[in-house]
Amino acid sequence: MSNNNVPRVAVGVLYSQEDRDTALSVTSAKETGHDFIILPITHSDYKRFLFDKVEDNKEKRLMEEWRNGKPFLKNDLIIQNNEHVDYLVGKISDWIDLDSSNHQVRTNSEIALNQQFSWAAHLGLTAIFVPTPTNSFLNYARSLNKILGNSTYTHIWMRIPIINEDTPYSNDIEMWEKWNKFRTFCENHHKLSIALELSVNLPDDVYLERWFAEPIKAVILPTKIFLTNVKGYPVLSKKHQGFVKKLMKYKPSFVVFDDMTSKHQDVGFAAYQEYVRHINRTMPEPNQIEQFGNGYQDFLQSPLQPLMDNLESSTYEIFEKDPVKYALYEKAVYYALLDRVALESNEITVIMVVGAGRGPLVTRSIKAAEKANRKVRIYAVEKNPNAFVILQNMKSEVWGDKVTIVFGDMRKWKAPEKADILVSELLGSFGDNELSPECLDGAQKYLKPDGISIPSSYRTFISPLSSSKLYNEVSAYKDLVHFETPYVVMFQSVTELAKPQEIWQFEHPNGSFVIDEEENPVNNYHNTRYSKVTFNITNSGILHGIAGYFESVLYKDVTMSILPATHSEGMFSWFPIFFPLKVPIYITSNSTLNIYFWRLTSSKKVWYEWCVDASLTVGSETKSYGSSNIQNVGGRSSWIGL
Amino acid sequence: MSNNNVPRVAVGVLYSQEDRDTALSVTSAKETGHDFIILPITHSDYKRFLFDKVEDNKEKRLMEEWRNGKPFLKNDLIIQNNEHVDYLVGKISDWIDLDSSNHQVRTNSEIALNQQFSWAAHLGLTAIFVPTPTNSFLNYARSLNKILGNSTYTHIWMRIPIINEDTPYSNDIEMWEKWNKFRTFCENHHKLSIALELSVNLPDDVYLERWFAEPIKAVILPTKIFLTNVKGYPVLSKKHQGFVKKLMKYKPSFVVFDDMTSKHQDVGFAAYQEYVRHINRTMPEPNQIEQFGNGYQDFLQSPLQPLMDNLESSTYEIFEKDPVKYALYEKAVYYALLDRVALESNEITVIMVVGAGRGPLVTRSIKAAEKANRKVRIYAVEKNPNAFVILQNMKSEVWGDKVTIVFGDMRKWKAPEKADILVSELLGSFGDNELSPECLDGAQKYLKPDGISIPSSYRTFISPLSSSKLYNEVSAYKDLVHFETPYVVMFQSVTELAKPQEIWQFEHPNGSFVIDEEENPVNNYHNTRYSKVTFNITNSGILHGIAGYFESVLYKDVTMSILPATHSEGMFSWFPIFFPLKVPIYITSNSTLNIYFWRLTSSKKVWYEWCVDASLTVGSETKSYGSSNIQNVGGRSSWIGL
Repeated sequence: MSNNNVPRVAVGVLYSQEDRDTALSVTSAKETGHDFIILPITHSDYKRFLFDKVEDNKEKRLMEEWRNGKPFLKNDLIIQNNEHVDYLVGKISDWIDLDSSNHQVRTNSEIALNQQFSWAAHLGLTAIFVPTPTNSFLNYARSLNKILGNSTYTHIWMRIPIINEDTPYSNDIEMWEKWNKFRTFCENHHKLSIALELSVNLPDDVYLERWFAEPIKAVILPTKIFLTNVKGYPVLSKKHQGFVKKLMKYKPSFVVFDDMTSKHQDVGFAAYQEYVRHINRTMPEPNQIEQFGNGYQDFLQSPLQPLMDNLESSTYEIFEKDPVKYALYEKAVYYALLDRVALESNEITVIMVVGAGRGPLVTRSIKAAEKANRKVRIYAVEKNPNAFVILQNMKSEVWGDKVTIVFGDMRKWKAPEKADILVSELLGSFGDNELSPECLDGAQKYLKPDGISIPSSYRTFISPLSSSKLYNEVSAYKDLVHFETPYVVMFQSVTELAKPQEIWQFEHPNGSFVIDEEENPVNNYHNTRYSKVTFNITNSGILHGIAGYFESVLYKDVTMSILPATHSEGMFSWFPIFFPLKVPIYITSNSTLNIYFWRLTSSKKVWYEWCVDASLTVGSETKSYGSSNIQNVGGRSSWIGL
Repeated sequence: MSNNNVPRVAVGVLYSQEDRDTALSVTSAKETGHDFIILPITHSDYKRFLFDKVEDNKEKRLMEEWRNGKPFLKNDLIIQNNEHVDYLVGKISDWIDLDSSNHQVRTNSEIALNQQFSWAAHLGLTAIFVPTPTNSFLNYARSLNKILGNSTYTHIWMRIPIINEDTPYSNDIEMWEKWNKFRTFCENHHKLSIALELSVNLPDDVYLERWFAEPIKAVILPTKIFLTNVKGYPVLSKKHQGFVKKLMKYKPSFVVFDDMTSKHQDVGFAAYQEYVRHINRTMPEPNQIEQFGNGYQDFLQSPLQPLMDNLESSTYEIFEKDPVKYALYEKAVYYALLDRVALESNEITVIMVVGAGRGPLVTRSIKAAEKANRKVRIYAVEKNPNAFVILQNMKSEVWGDKVTIVFGDMRKWKAPEKADILVSELLGSFGDNELSPECLDGAQKYLKPDGISIPSSYRTFISPLSSSKLYNEVSAYKDLVHFETPYVVMFQSVTELAKPQEIWQFEHPNGSFVIDEEENPVNNYHNTRYSKVTFNITNSGILHGIAGYFESVLYKDVTMSILPATHSEGMFSWFPIFFPLKVPIYITSNSTLNIYFWRLTSSKKVWYEWCVDASLTVGSETKSYGSSNIQNVGGRSSWIGL
């Protein structure tokens, strides 16, 4: 099952030996099929400038001269010019010791770091490989943060081993915690990324998954993690393969790290990169949803406002292509027809499709009626004048007399008769967020008292979400409004901190409201909702926002869902929805997280508000340690017009 | 000890009975000497609009009409017009139940709240008294938050009992935690304030003090907390008196709450407010520092930049008035002179006053020499051309020949001889923050190798600070720069979460740097500092920023300090310094708080960076639950020019 459409994966190399010649290294890396090489910027001897044992005044003076910005000597540099720049990632010296207790070593380490970085930036290297933080790393974080603030093009790849090899079993989460703290101190800078180094033993899946929410730009494969196949070639274990394949979705660069274990010398060093490319080529073909969503991963879209705005033809076009959704609707109408009248009866069932768009539900209703062998009279109501043109064409060319098309808002239509079945497709990613409840309340007046609404109900679910990627996307707007706006997103770089839970539901027809003389609800308070759900958070993580999903009963057993656990297979009409938090909250392991959610309404609009509160139990005491504000108060930043 | 200069304190009244007539109530409140009255906006019968048991359709229709905004009936209102508006605080009905599990009660409570609030705002009431949050209060917070977002003039006074009377001993901090959560959900809105209700038993001082960092607009004194003196008049216990006096510094309104205990009926209801005014009149006179600081409490000032800017005459004028500081300097010079030469010796001691300003240290040095009976030759070096005019006057009119005045930067002056004693007053609130280290490094070249610097050293201290007041002041600027700038502030509405700890010190003369041919340091790296201090936080609180202080040894035993524990009595030249945090961090009780602080330098400037990290020990595990970014990276927001 080879997949030739997959783009070529970038595979580079990192050697253990520090003091290499650039030209020779580049040549040998190219010969062994690598796309780039991570090379130290200076020779190891440059370490003398730490001056950690300065005694006499002459040496002290030399040190101060160096500190005052003496240029590199040519012999100190490995990367001496910009000849091979496109082929290189610069490596900062491992010996810099920014958190030394010695003021001199600390100061000189920072100067050396700045020097190396500034030379690499001057040459135009686009990525710099920096050392793993040690246990105490605050001064390292500060120094790097300063560099990040000044750098325009250069990205930082921070070497992060997936497990701390010294304590491989006891402490699986330690490296993530360390990384997390480091980037928090650095304001989640978007140019600070991870070069994730795999280990011989990988931690449990739950610990692997948390890395998917992180900005991984490179994956380091030390040669020691490779096994040997029967032909003597390097291969990865099933578990490593699985993880590498998952990582490949995020399109990182790969780096073969020659750790001098020399396990596969007979087959040559090229074998590692060939194997990585082989894994990439044999990735399974993306499924329909992945194909559809390609390019949309982690891309923030504003939810549709079909009531306020008229959808464009291309939007209808895309959604009509969903292979699953309309089949489910057809099935629902089919069963409803069967239940509605007996086969022998000659009665006509009145179906009203409200919000008919370009007519897919009309077509499906006709099909359902044919299959069910029932007589139907269909009305199609649509308020979008452009879509109505298509409806007119459909009626004259395809549907004919059995369909009556009506131009207008379903909430205001004076229907000539009452419907047996009301069919609508007004659901948004959050269920009610495209105002299905309000629209169907208005349409309900021309549904018979015992009539059927398809959908008959929908439930909304939320879960706590971690995703520095999405958070950075939102915060790039640098304003409050975007933090208080929900987005439709195809999740990729995310980790769910707990499984989704239901917050509320809507049912149709709805008998709970008082009507006015026009048979419309006298107000919309019956469609407000308020819910608190409690999540037990087992593993620590950063809460960046809240994911939203819906599950709908179209008719009896015919259900439609975008909730991961029950997702209607192959249906791509809805991505989940994402409600951001203004300030990310670090959730410690074994925390209790309360999420509060509101659906609120005025006479003009509907909006959501949300807030969270995290607590920890210490002995018999519950300590609440992190709360958000209530976001989007009064719908100040985002709302849906009625 | 009566203090007639104290401004009149506002004392109002709150009655237990709900259904009162406004005109009568106002008259009786005035007759008993009160300045205002807290009065319910509607009669208690208005509760019928909760419609908590709506059965038939007719009543349902009535409810919906009311929900749709039917105006108040005149009879439902207690406050019916704006006749007594300046005398009234409106009270929201206690029966509103915003967190009811019943959708109808919840919805109608919010409508009633909005109605009452909007009527009060319409009348122009400037304050609204709202009920204490119950155990579940999220929907209450959301509803109030919405109102806060829309209100322009009206302030909210939230009734907060200082202890939850149901569990008076076990749970002293519960009410503060509740309040804290409530206002966090409400984005720390500046119009949401506390009406703090005192109880018969007051909690321990440490729990009382945390309220000083909160926005207390009113203090409620229920009549039951009053004792009876020998004449039968109401008085407060010593502990209550002490707390009330402390609260009076924040100038809240007081409210006598007639809780129907009827303890002092013989002496009349006026006796309570008279007693409160009596306490206010007999407050101790403010000390010199309080007098000097009056009007400056919690006011953010930018630290001086004497090196970059020339100080104004009025600034010198104020600081020269300090009764303590110059006496300490005189003492230090006196002892240094005694140590420097024997009395019988006829040797002349060379004193150089660097940064002489308008000359106070010159005058004090002359006095010290006279007292010590030592011969001196004094140089006064000053770079501010305006101050130098005054120095010229002083020389010709007062000092005469024994003083040589020099115009120029002390770091560049070519002195004609070397000094025995170098006297300077370059310290800022944070010790080194007005660049004393850099200036004295430059002046050191004309100090004899065994010469004395006054001051000889200074140490910097920090402590974690809670102050929603200061935080709101900083965030009012709505930009990053102000969050990354230190301020000089006379603390008032603050609580220290732990005692100050030392972070670093400077000593003069300083032998640790290499000099260039001009005898100046070749660079400034020796004046960088980095320190981590760990605080154990016993009681929970919100960390809004970091307080800074200094302690200095002028000479041997002569010290000068603005650290609270060792503050030089009566000295007012320095207020503490405040480094804000961009995002406040809630610190749970028994937490460990690490604060990291840097003093950093380039060739052009000096700046500070700071960050914090809070953790909690659960079993054997340390859980880090809250970190800040590293603030002011690279001095991007605040720095001191060299």
